[in-house]
Amino acid sequence: MNNNPYSRLFEPVKIGPVVTKNRFYQVPHCCGMGHLRPKAHAAMRETKAKGGWGVVSTEEAEIHPSSDLAPYVEQRIWDKRDIPALRLMTEAVHKHGALAAIELTHSGHNSTNLFSRIPAMSPNAQPVNFLYPKQSRRMSKKDISNFRVWHKRAALNAKEAGFDIVYVYAGHGMSVAQQFILPDMNNRTDEYGGSLENRLRLTRELLEETQEAIGDSCGVAFRFAVDELKGKDGMQFKEEGRAVVELLSEHPDLWDVNVSDWSNDSQTSRFEPNEGYQMPYVEFVKSLTTKPVVGVGRLTSPDLMVKLIDRGALDLIGAARPSIADPYLPNKIKTENTDQIKECIGCNICVSSDNFSVPIRCTQNPTMGEEWRRGWDPEHIKPKLSDQQALVVGSGPAGLECSLQLARRGYQVTLAESKSQLGGRVLFESGLKGLAAWKRVVDNRVHEILQKNNIEIYKESKLTSAHINELEIKNIFIATGSKWRKDGVGRSRRSPIKGIESVKVFTPEEIIQEEQNIKDPVIIYDDEQGYLAGVLADHLSSKGIDVTFVTPASVVSPWTESTLEQKRVQKSLISAGVKIVCNSLIEKIENQTAHLECVFTGAITELSCKSVVMVTERIANTSLYDQLNEQKVSNKPRSIDQNIRLIGDAEAPGLIADAVFSGHLAAQDFEATETDIEKALFMREMPSLND
Amino acid sequence: MNNNPYSRLFEPVKIGPVVTKNRFYQVPHCCGMGHLRPKAHAAMRETKAKGGWGVVSTEEAEIHPSSDLAPYVEQRIWDKRDIPALRLMTEAVHKHGALAAIELTHSGHNSTNLFSRIPAMSPNAQPVNFLYPKQSRRMSKKDISNFRVWHKRAALNAKEAGFDIVYVYAGHGMSVAQQFILPDMNNRTDEYGGSLENRLRLTRELLEETQEAIGDSCGVAFRFAVDELKGKDGMQFKEEGRAVVELLSEHPDLWDVNVSDWSNDSQTSRFEPNEGYQMPYVEFVKSLTTKPVVGVGRLTSPDLMVKLIDRGALDLIGAARPSIADPYLPNKIKTENTDQIKECIGCNICVSSDNFSVPIRCTQNPTMGEEWRRGWDPEHIKPKLSDQQALVVGSGPAGLECSLQLARRGYQVTLAESKSQLGGRVLFESGLKGLAAWKRVVDNRVHEILQKNNIEIYKESKLTSAHINELEIKNIFIATGSKWRKDGVGRSRRSPIKGIESVKVFTPEEIIQEEQNIKDPVIIYDDEQGYLAGVLADHLSSKGIDVTFVTPASVVSPWTESTLEQKRVQKSLISAGVKIVCNSLIEKIENQTAHLECVFTGAITELSCKSVVMVTERIANTSLYDQLNEQKVSNKPRSIDQNIRLIGDAEAPGLIADAVFSGHLAAQDFEATETDIEKALFMREMPSLND
Repeated sequence: MNNNPYSRLFEPVKIGPVVTKNRFYQVPHCCGMGHLRPKAHAAMRETKAKGGWGVVSTEEAEIHPSSDLAPYVEQRIWDKRDIPALRLMTEAVHKHGALAAIELTHSGHNSTNLFSRIPAMSPNAQPVNFLYPKQSRRMSKKDISNFRVWHKRAALNAKEAGFDIVYVYAGHGMSVAQQFILPDMNNRTDEYGGSLENRLRLTRELLEETQEAIGDSCGVAFRFAVDELKGKDGMQFKEEGRAVVELLSEHPDLWDVNVSDWSNDSQTSRFEPNEGYQMPYVEFVKSLTTKPVVGVGRLTSPDLMVKLIDRGALDLIGAARPSIADPYLPNKIKTENTDQIKECIGCNICVSSDNFSVPIRCTQNPTMGEEWRRGWDPEHIKPKLSDQQALVVGSGPAGLECSLQLARRGYQVTLAESKSQLGGRVLFESGLKGLAAWKRVVDNRVHEILQKNNIEIYKESKLTSAHINELEIKNIFIATGSKWRKDGVGRSRRSPIKGIESVKVFTPEEIIQEEQNIKDPVIIYDDEQGYLAGVLADHLSSKGIDVTFVTPASVVSPWTESTLEQKRVQKSLISAGVKIVCNSLIEKIENQTAHLECVFTGAITELSCKSVVMVTERIANTSLYDQLNEQKVSNKPRSIDQNIRLIGDAEAPGLIADAVFSGHLAAQDFEATETDIEKALFMREMPSLND
Repeated sequence: MNNNPYSRLFEPVKIGPVVTKNRFYQVPHCCGMGHLRPKAHAAMRETKAKGGWGVVSTEEAEIHPSSDLAPYVEQRIWDKRDIPALRLMTEAVHKHGALAAIELTHSGHNSTNLFSRIPAMSPNAQPVNFLYPKQSRRMSKKDISNFRVWHKRAALNAKEAGFDIVYVYAGHGMSVAQQFILPDMNNRTDEYGGSLENRLRLTRELLEETQEAIGDSCGVAFRFAVDELKGKDGMQFKEEGRAVVELLSEHPDLWDVNVSDWSNDSQTSRFEPNEGYQMPYVEFVKSLTTKPVVGVGRLTSPDLMVKLIDRGALDLIGAARPSIADPYLPNKIKTENTDQIKECIGCNICVSSDNFSVPIRCTQNPTMGEEWRRGWDPEHIKPKLSDQQALVVGSGPAGLECSLQLARRGYQVTLAESKSQLGGRVLFESGLKGLAAWKRVVDNRVHEILQKNNIEIYKESKLTSAHINELEIKNIFIATGSKWRKDGVGRSRRSPIKGIESVKVFTPEEIIQEEQNIKDPVIIYDDEQGYLAGVLADHLSSKGIDVTFVTPASVVSPWTESTLEQKRVQKSLISAGVKIVCNSLIEKIENQTAHLECVFTGAITELSCKSVVMVTERIANTSLYDQLNEQKVSNKPRSIDQNIRLIGDAEAPGLIADAVFSGHLAAQDFEATETDIEKALFMREMPSLND
């Protein structure tokens, strides 16, 4: 260890009365499991402890029913009845020598209270953040003192549940403590409003009372957003953000600092490519406190981590997304296997799962969220059951993942790719503006595959069923991807657009191949409503192409709300001069004129149209699969009874994350019994009927 | 009973091997409880059985993890492990002599599979309905036969769980059986596609196999949408809708017929004021089958119900929403207390709760969804604990409900209203275009209040704290409502709009008072983003006023997506000539020009502006409450120690449903111990840790 260039990262750090064994700190992050899925939650957090994180935190934990976040699934520590579920997590984390942290939260007007049905409360009366026509009520003095009692009670319950670190939370615009600090949300005239001292009063009380309650045996962390990235209209790290740190410098046992709101804290690589992007905002903190400081910023590079420690920017390397993409990141650094780190690509699929209230998933790490249900672990996979061989056709995200995992299980794998480069759709997409980091999905896998001696790779090998028969491999995984339709069929219409053949139609791939030659204006027609059409618009306009974006949706790329990107996407397109026509579907094309139909009224407007890029729907490439199956049915004499499985987009087009998952699932399911496969599929946590 | 003019409604009806005691049939409806909240679910359905419904159904029940609806909370009957939770409901329903029905569902491409993470499957490969960039896969023959096996297994499990009626479901665009029937969603060339006979094959098989499995002891119901209200582009009741009924006429034991999709089936009173609006579509069914037929259409009038039975339109009076607004509707008809029926107002707050994945609620019936957690029942309330008196100030939805429930408990109530009419905001809102039915909230309550001899009503009585002191009533409920802000503070900005004082600004109430005198164009500025601004735009433009609708939202009235109204709202405004400016907030006003700031880029555009209606945020009217409390604090000598509680919009502005709930809660909590109140607030169903 002493010769390890990263040994500084493995120094212990004292956090109040507790000591973390190293500097790797999984900060609190949502995961869509929370109070509904305690076993899944414990198993997911355990994997991180197993992977070497010194501290493993929960997501935000509601401390009282008046801070109810339904329909979002977060953690709960309403009362003692929550302790057994929380203890599952602390015990699992402790097993591996990590500390367990909990983020106590009262959400103020970020509460929905759609479950509890009582009014939300916050420093001022104002609309609740959730889009619902109801408002919070202004907290009375009695409310403030009640809240302090609840917070203290929750801290005591947290200690009883086995937590080592207890948070006071003032970040993301999501907690009442922060709402008191921000002048925009606090116009009170009592001792809790007005001057910064006054606005900080509640936070100071919480810190002191939490110390008092559990400071003997637990560290008290303070999570604070030093900047809202709103300029003068919000908290700024050179102004009040700094002042807060000065005023409370020695109060907490640990400063966990970031920028607010969530979309700024968890920026995607598409809009913020730089690792460590929060450092300029949070680096000042260490100069104002003797207490340890943790910060984040999609940190995955051990060299940068060491630099940050060395230059005194941070004491602890905070991570949410990098710990999701690779729960074993610390261990890989410790064992100097840094080349094996699966790096976060910054796509925010993890964030989107929480926004959809479903268990967390990750593009890079298909085992994420499946630790309990399917028993998966990113570094350990069950060994092969036989000496069977497997052929994987196609090296996109599904094919690569399937090949790699089959090889890790010990099977002999043949991977055939028709093109000259491995990677499939990821090669295409990561070439588009803003998506360069997505290439890591391929790079990390190819790097690992090349180290295996049980995968044979054939590039530029477009296999036919005849070739496959010759190979005499029994087990065939077809990962042949999908192609974009060109006829306009998509979400909003199930029949082709009339007249579409009278204009030039491009698929997304075709327009990029041709991008040098495009002189005329193009219409991008987005009836998929995911991310791709927006990325293409951004990309093509950056190449000087005149783009009009037409979509039946009301905003550009509505799905990207879930990845916290939508506003940035639309801003980017507008700024690039892309003309945006929402709420419109292409009804037909006539005389190089698109007839756009209003999705509300059916009224038609006309738009000149010579070229269209169609982003509406994909057709799975199943011809090889179909041929192989027809052979089977037609019972032609073959030497071998093939076992054929479609995976990835060839089975059902979806996200890259879906394709990786599909490839992983196929590798895991290979040679499993039907019973075992079914068992995992039916696994779920169910409400108790007995209490 | 024989003299009861509605006795026909209480005739038994045979449904296959089972017999319902009367013609009142609660058709399957969602409720946001489902598999997550089995105890709450059972108690809610039980209340309907108690209230006299002959049949009580579940919501849609997923039959397999490949039909996963997460994050929506529906019922599950994946396997035998679901039986105990379902049995809670059947036993509860049977206790009161009702039959229990279950709607078995495989959702095809309406599945999200965000929990199971396997591809959705449907007749064609196509985008999943949920806004997510992924597609279903086309069902193979093997998939179809698997699905049939799952359906049969679910039917057997349903029987074991105690259900009397088992559904085959082909409605709302939400089930794979219907997706096979609709040519738009089925372009198969095998024996399951093409001719109607082929497209019906799967449904026919399901009906036969369900019969076979459980037909000996359970009725087999078929829920079928006879029309999609899309004209030639969809199923039509005079064309294939009719043909389906002809082809399957004697197959099911019961026809449950409606129109599709959900927004058509559950139309709000705002856009479809007529009770029985589905009759023109479904009435033909009875002429083609000897089997009983149930239909819906917000039926609450017993006279109409009898007419429908008499003229052979229906055999059973179906209801979802009317059974939510009044679970005791059948009993009230039976006992000839029809004047006491709480009539559904057609606001779709019930629907919105399911769309937000939270337990069902109802504007008319504040006990809905609270049967288990709070032990509430719309017809039974705990009696008074003492002879204390109560004063309720304000007769809006909160004040009326609070007064009524206190009186029902037996307390002596004084209700003071400053205006000449009881009803508060409901009077205002129900006077707006499309909202007439909302008046029922007041009418039903006032009618009941007038029958009580323990409520004294004082109209035109604007009480001051001095008056209240003179009254010497200890318990005071302040329901003084709220007023709309005029300064532009709302969701998108926390400081007043500069220059707003230079133009004429109206609150919603003011513009309606002035509507005869408005000659100039007006801007409606909606930064609440609920329903009201859209209603006002519709209303004012119908009066010939030139309206421009400006909102930071991307669509008009985005919250009304949850009530299935948004597309209708925006269509209505466009059709009325309202100019719509989305994605824009008013930054300032200068020289009668509004500077509109783009929410994406901050770019400014200008809009002429002489008059603005501000729909941004409300200020609770708490001055009376504050005065009374100041008195208490200043310790002025008073004869009585007042117990003062804020309720409704005066506590926290919200929906009418929130205000009614708040009034009800206050009446229920009155004289309850802190412990009891807290206990209800902390009640919830929790995952089992033991299996």
